[in-house]
Amino acid sequence: MVQKKVISLTKPIIEDAITNLYCNNFPASLCIADLGCSSGPNTLFAVLEVVTTMDKVRKKMGRQLPEIQVFLNDLPGNDFNTIFKSLPKFQKDLQKTMGAGAESCFVTGVPGSFYGRLFPSKSLHFVHSSYSLQWLSQVPQGLESNKGNIYMASSSPPSVLKAYYEQFQRDFSMFLRCRSEELLEGGGTVLTFLGRRSEDPSSKECCYIWELLAVALNDMVSEGLIAEEKMDSFNIPQYTPSPAEVKCEVEKEGSFIINRLEVSEVNWNAYHGEFCPSDAHKDGGYNVAKLMRAVAEPLLVSHFGDGIIEEVFSRYKNIVADRMTREKTEFVNVTVSMTKRG
Amino acid sequence: MVQKKVISLTKPIIEDAITNLYCNNFPASLCIADLGCSSGPNTLFAVLEVVTTMDKVRKKMGRQLPEIQVFLNDLPGNDFNTIFKSLPKFQKDLQKTMGAGAESCFVTGVPGSFYGRLFPSKSLHFVHSSYSLQWLSQVPQGLESNKGNIYMASSSPPSVLKAYYEQFQRDFSMFLRCRSEELLEGGGTVLTFLGRRSEDPSSKECCYIWELLAVALNDMVSEGLIAEEKMDSFNIPQYTPSPAEVKCEVEKEGSFIINRLEVSEVNWNAYHGEFCPSDAHKDGGYNVAKLMRAVAEPLLVSHFGDGIIEEVFSRYKNIVADRMTREKTEFVNVTVSMTKRG
Repeated sequence: MVQKKVISLTKPIIEDAITNLYCNNFPASLCIADLGCSSGPNTLFAVLEVVTTMDKVRKKMGRQLPEIQVFLNDLPGNDFNTIFKSLPKFQKDLQKTMGAGAESCFVTGVPGSFYGRLFPSKSLHFVHSSYSLQWLSQVPQGLESNKGNIYMASSSPPSVLKAYYEQFQRDFSMFLRCRSEELLEGGGTVLTFLGRRSEDPSSKECCYIWELLAVALNDMVSEGLIAEEKMDSFNIPQYTPSPAEVKCEVEKEGSFIINRLEVSEVNWNAYHGEFCPSDAHKDGGYNVAKLMRAVAEPLLVSHFGDGIIEEVFSRYKNIVADRMTREKTEFVNVTVSMTKRG
Repeated sequence: MVQKKVISLTKPIIEDAITNLYCNNFPASLCIADLGCSSGPNTLFAVLEVVTTMDKVRKKMGRQLPEIQVFLNDLPGNDFNTIFKSLPKFQKDLQKTMGAGAESCFVTGVPGSFYGRLFPSKSLHFVHSSYSLQWLSQVPQGLESNKGNIYMASSSPPSVLKAYYEQFQRDFSMFLRCRSEELLEGGGTVLTFLGRRSEDPSSKECCYIWELLAVALNDMVSEGLIAEEKMDSFNIPQYTPSPAEVKCEVEKEGSFIINRLEVSEVNWNAYHGEFCPSDAHKDGGYNVAKLMRAVAEPLLVSHFGDGIIEEVFSRYKNIVADRMTREKTEFVNVTVSMTKRG
């Protein structure tokens, strides 16, 4: 639901980017990619939004309906089978909003890391990515001193913040270099990071949700349920950049012109009023814990084994619920819309 | 193993087709598709053969290494996850034979029926398909009189043979029309059907292996293990064309020039000497039954349920083993290599 809300929030930016594309020389056949597409109800929702926006813009500009080749990318372990099995429903949804042109939308799956090349040179017109680029290619090296934390936190030493930032710089500049090779001149991209407003990388707005998970884990350490050295060596491979940090990497890489760079917020409890309103009202902690579990469980399992999972998230749910009643809790999104230079 | 043998057999034809491609105007980036790729050890073997052949030809002709985008297609129910997880090994194998250029080969998955459009217009340079095009899009209508048979047989009435042939014509001409839209001018395609030499569609060379399965099923009908009306309404959605029938559809459709049209054979027991020689020698029936089970089990289960499967294939194995000792048993392959007209 958070992801869906983010896509809705960024829709005007996507619309703008596609209008830009149409103002450039525009071919009869378009190749677009969604990077870090995941596998769930949101995967094809994002594509649906992008494709119907394309259709709306081309109608407004009196253009022919293009053929659209959609590349859905995620890591090779992603469940592409489930996405592919839901394609007939997607085609129906597309038909409902677009009419006759829906059969000219060809969907393909591309397994691989977006921190490397995924497509031939100059083969893409538009690249979309939402809520994926905050994931680093690996846990940064040199986090030994981040004891008691699992992410950047107010108590993290400067060397930890530096290690995280440098990993982000390496990864995002590699991402930009790869996409600049793959996009055609004049091609566009809209990228949304889970990010922050503040220039402080350990700021509460991005790190608090992980700090609360660390609280749950540390409680279990003090009760002897988790070994202390296990806890000390666990860190989340994520970096939630500020708009200025995103801008800085784009300018250093040099292949893209920034058209828009914006920040938006989604409440932690974005289920509220959309999914299961009565439950959400009663138990926001449950929803947020569920959302975070989907994200964090694979990381926790591969480090701690699966024996602790139920206990961790049961504790986490209570901690989150408590904080949500007492303070404003939001995710911050940083969205950048860019054009590949000529 | 049969599939692997077929790809090896058709290798000179593929090499020829790719050399043809290079004689035409040849871009820096190539898009190739393998249609009906399935999911197993042979899936990426076929791609490996095509890509390394491309590399060999371009070396011989003193050309730069192209970037290659590979589209693997099969129905949406195909297990693409398994293919995608084996990509790292494929990249290593490619590196071994090609060296530095291997990282310029980008693999994607395309779910959908090849009896419809799968790609944008004029987006492909080369289309490969092996042992898939004999599968029809559906069981032909009008097979009510094919009682006691499960495929075309010497005892099938002429109306059954006609219904099968007309379904083949509709399907293959649709295939050709779709591919002619998707291939660039001068683009090539090599298609291998499980087929036959004879002009008689109920000829033993293509139908015998199914007739033996019908023997097993009919035995079970007479023992009351399968209901007769269930047996009478079961038919295999396959058509194994002759070279002349393939040629006829290609000429009717009109978009392709035939460069080569060839017939080859593979022994039913192609495991022999390759996979598990001692077993194969002892028990060819086991290997053939295993091969046919992989193909026929989903069809049998969806019609008869899964209760009869073990019994059917146990009987089938013995019947096949018996015939193999007494006569020459071969699959016939029809391969056509074509170029899209300018």
